[in-house]
Amino acid sequence: MHHVDVPTAKIWSLSRKYKLLPIHRVLLGHDGSMTNLLELISCCEVALRTIKQSVIPCPREVADLLAVDAGEPVNERDIIIVRSRDGSPLLYARSYTPLSRLKSAFKADLMRADIPIGKIMQRHRIEARREILDVGYLSNDRHLEKLLARPGPYLLRTYNIITQGKPLITVKEYFSASL
Amino acid sequence: MHHVDVPTAKIWSLSRKYKLLPIHRVLLGHDGSMTNLLELISCCEVALRTIKQSVIPCPREVADLLAVDAGEPVNERDIIIVRSRDGSPLLYARSYTPLSRLKSAFKADLMRADIPIGKIMQRHRIEARREILDVGYLSNDRHLEKLLARPGPYLLRTYNIITQGKPLITVKEYFSASL
Repeated sequence: MHHVDVPTAKIWSLSRKYKLLPIHRVLLGHDGSMTNLLELISCCEVALRTIKQSVIPCPREVADLLAVDAGEPVNERDIIIVRSRDGSPLLYARSYTPLSRLKSAFKADLMRADIPIGKIMQRHRIEARREILDVGYLSNDRHLEKLLARPGPYLLRTYNIITQGKPLITVKEYFSASL
Repeated sequence: MHHVDVPTAKIWSLSRKYKLLPIHRVLLGHDGSMTNLLELISCCEVALRTIKQSVIPCPREVADLLAVDAGEPVNERDIIIVRSRDGSPLLYARSYTPLSRLKSAFKADLMRADIPIGKIMQRHRIEARREILDVGYLSNDRHLEKLLARPGPYLLRTYNIITQGKPLITVKEYFSASL
């Protein structure tokens, strides 16, 4: 018998407490590309709308997740994934990538800012693993209500994309449970 | 604007034709661990029941998928993923792995036969990408009806798990649309 992950067990527990649907549990706990998943669920193409993208000194709490020194240059990216058809928001995400771990072709795509990470990885045939670090539930949040144009509750998750043994990107994603 | 994959477009088309649910599209097209996905969907632990496992000379059609010579030794594994709680079958899969591409620790786990591939990869922290090769729909099939203990229709998919630029495993999975 194998062992069930801590995040999976936490998702089951959130699911019982808040009566989540199977699709919510999948959105919280899957370890594949989120863009791909959203295209499968919504049965249409999705696009990326960039809110903010800039190189900043790595904040302390992010440095711990990425295993880099605080202050090291990282690319911070705030995006919303929307349905291409009507522009309606599906997911809000903030990600951080240490510039020192970015190869130039990947970096150019990431800085172009309109391509989802999953698509960039696919294009460059990047081999990786995704490690779900935490999942959570928020009954309401004004900022998210504006960004996602939907009322709460919201579900969130934090995960790392790991290549060559090191975190390449740490991502925090939020979506409405009415998705 | 990015480009939608051929398998994703085929899944949308199957979905319209056969009125598939979002969860079916996810099962067909996601690029993460299938074991993990089944544990999220069914909200309980799953286990692996091995039907057959042996080293055979690689059949021609499989050799093409794996990019190895026909006749090269491959590990053929037929399994059913079941709900641990009640043993009810969720998915039937047949996979092939060229022995030449297996590292010894991974090989030992694969030959032990009771551990799902996704769990083995997680345990060994293997970085990979999954490439969906094809998806399909079967209205009925006697063999699958026995294996899965459910009537048709069935959904199926073929994908490769790629590490270090080469297919490590090619997998064909079948599950009931009533899952």
